[in-house]
Amino acid sequence: HQRFATLLDKLGEVAVKAGLNLRPGQELIISAPIEALPLVRTITKYAYQVGTTQVTPIFSDNILKKARFLYGHEAIFDYASQWFADGIAEAFQNGAARMAITGEDPSLLSDIAPERIARATKASSIANQKAMKLITSFATNWTIVAFATPEWAAKVFPDIPIDQAVENLWEAIFTASRIRGTDPIAEWKDHNAQLNKKATQLNTQRFSALHFTGPGTDMTIGLADDHFWAAGAEETQNGIICNPNIPTEEVFTTPHRLRVNGHVQSTKPLSYQGNLIDNIRVTFKDGTITEAHATKGEDALHRMIANDEGARRLGEVALVPHSSPIAQQNILFQNTLFDENAASHIALGQSYSKCMMNAEALSDKELLEKGANQSIIHVDWMIGSGEIDVDGLSQTQERQPLMRKGEWV
Amino acid sequence: HQRFATLLDKLGEVAVKAGLNLRPGQELIISAPIEALPLVRTITKYAYQVGTTQVTPIFSDNILKKARFLYGHEAIFDYASQWFADGIAEAFQNGAARMAITGEDPSLLSDIAPERIARATKASSIANQKAMKLITSFATNWTIVAFATPEWAAKVFPDIPIDQAVENLWEAIFTASRIRGTDPIAEWKDHNAQLNKKATQLNTQRFSALHFTGPGTDMTIGLADDHFWAAGAEETQNGIICNPNIPTEEVFTTPHRLRVNGHVQSTKPLSYQGNLIDNIRVTFKDGTITEAHATKGEDALHRMIANDEGARRLGEVALVPHSSPIAQQNILFQNTLFDENAASHIALGQSYSKCMMNAEALSDKELLEKGANQSIIHVDWMIGSGEIDVDGLSQTQERQPLMRKGEWV
Ligand SMILES: [Zn+2]
Ligand SMILES: [Zn+2]
Ligand SMILES: [Zn+2]
Ligand SMILES: [Zn+2]
Repeated sequence: HQRFATLLDKLGEVAVKAGLNLRPGQELIISAPIEALPLVRTITKYAYQVGTTQVTPIFSDNILKKARFLYGHEAIFDYASQWFADGIAEAFQNGAARMAITGEDPSLLSDIAPERIARATKASSIANQKAMKLITSFATNWTIVAFATPEWAAKVFPDIPIDQAVENLWEAIFTASRIRGTDPIAEWKDHNAQLNKKATQLNTQRFSALHFTGPGTDMTIGLADDHFWAAGAEETQNGIICNPNIPTEEVFTTPHRLRVNGHVQSTKPLSYQGNLIDNIRVTFKDGTITEAHATKGEDALHRMIANDEGARRLGEVALVPHSSPIAQQNILFQNTLFDENAASHIALGQSYSKCMMNAEALSDKELLEKGANQSIIHVDWMIGSGEIDVDGLSQTQERQPLMRKGEWV
Repeated sequence: HQRFATLLDKLGEVAVKAGLNLRPGQELIISAPIEALPLVRTITKYAYQVGTTQVTPIFSDNILKKARFLYGHEAIFDYASQWFADGIAEAFQNGAARMAITGEDPSLLSDIAPERIARATKASSIANQKAMKLITSFATNWTIVAFATPEWAAKVFPDIPIDQAVENLWEAIFTASRIRGTDPIAEWKDHNAQLNKKATQLNTQRFSALHFTGPGTDMTIGLADDHFWAAGAEETQNGIICNPNIPTEEVFTTPHRLRVNGHVQSTKPLSYQGNLIDNIRVTFKDGTITEAHATKGEDALHRMIANDEGARRLGEVALVPHSSPIAQQNILFQNTLFDENAASHIALGQSYSKCMMNAEALSDKELLEKGANQSIIHVDWMIGSGEIDVDGLSQTQERQPLMRKGEWV
């Protein structure tokens, strides 16, 4: 128990110092499941010690979340509160940092009518568009860390007693988050340097496309004009270096929204709005999905890509070696923060402006013209494994091997 | 335990239906200590059943609150986050209802430097002024109910085991909140009718002043021009009848800020910013405090009245019979919601515009000219007991007995 307390304290310290790199005088907004209170307290302590002016915690509760779907009148599901989203956006604009603690029950809403969830998710995405844009464009420093809630652990390890499941999930989180060493802050510095080296290399190579091949996959992903490879730490618009994801293993950039062709098969199930979508098989023609199948959750997949025009196109492509510590754990976390760092992946929907050169200076229209996709969704799914090869294609279609059997060449 | 669950469910139902009288299509904002989660869940269920569009819970935690004072840098205590207060104000303006659940540890901050607390409270009051004004002018429907947190119960019943203390406090809350009967909603209707009758009588009499006499007390409180006696249920500006306080026993109005003279002694200790202030003795001259003493917490009293010019003047006078069910419990709750309904009281600071006739049509300046006080504070303290007499004085100084030995004549 003392050992656990020490590790949790380290996770909190890493979240504040390496994750956010919180600066004196910044406000801090923390969103968290109510079960994560012990981690919120640790983070808050470090935040005030660093010099934050005010911590605003925003707790969510599974039963409260679900109550809306269970008891709410039918008319309310297209409605989302705007004042709260606007307030958060205002805070980000004024320099507040944002800490998100993830630990949701991935199947909380699995017995709710999917149509209700889709309507509510869409309304909430629209209400939060401004705040989300400030986050994805790194107007301020932000990070996500995980807390092993019992509800989450039970879904990841369904066949063992709950106490053991929670303990296993914590061990996986602590390992993946790289906080076990004597100086985790320094370790994060090293890890960032390595990721950055790989991103810099790709940015120098300036491929025009990537070609993925493997079982069920033969897909060429054209890259956006002036795409930019990002990885690990990011510099915010006000010059703070933060680590938006703890853990992070990916090197990622922006596909061209009109230049994806071929077919691709998922290598891990996708947890989406309470449902598992398994064995996704999708065909792309000129950037858009022309066929989408899944052996499980096909309806959810079709609902997902029907959100808007951009939901049928790619907003992200990411490379993760199969030897990454998260991939080696071989756990299906049913949580994007972990699963997307276990394998190379693509995301349908919104692109990251940070993955475009000089995005700050460009309008939405200009970004779109360079090929950066726009959508109210951003859903990552895994296409990497130990059987996938990736080549880079130059402007003149010269081919260069990047990954073989899931490992960097 | 089943019996407790039933009573808690009734408290939640009364809070939504009698307290808020929540209407379909309204948003609902609930602020609550994190320990009150079970009551928040019950309230949320009833709220969605009634037809609320979205419940936004705002949880507070003692350790998080205290962390700011323990670890925060010295410069931050004059700072308060504005975006959150503004968002709340916007929500109220757009018709969101507000539920506050009270259950704070009254001595949470007792070991924090009072000067820090005073600075932080002042900054927060200023940031929240707009939202508070919407609440006090009943721009929307709101209510406060209580939850017996262990930290609160331990302070109210310090000499018994904590489980017993929590149970005792719950019994007191259930009784005071009038939810034990078979039809508490109907009971609240009756109770409101009786309080309303008393307020209507006082509004017909249109006294120019009240005269309090008793041990250590001989004080004349002039009433504001166009003062209005309020009690129990209130009608909001958009026509919803709500019960802002559960429980409520008081009939209250606005003193004239320049016309209070004499001396008064408190009859119960006042819990203020983590300190108990006991045996307050105050002298008024032309509405303002000229001398203020207390046998305990005199420093805190002096800090309180130094907040601004209006903090030395009265913003409320309230009559509560000594036979009220809360007074009969003879418990010092150290919580205004309960203690102010156990005895006649006065409040230093901001007046309620609802306690002025046609306040909606008047500017702040016009209200001030009629004698309604303005301040960033509003602190109630008890001056009633079984030994206090109250007379009403007419415009022509005719005297009419209102209370004898703490009971309505
Ligand atoms: Zn990614
Ligand atoms: Zn992604
Ligand atoms: Zn009162
Ligand atoms: Zn009051």
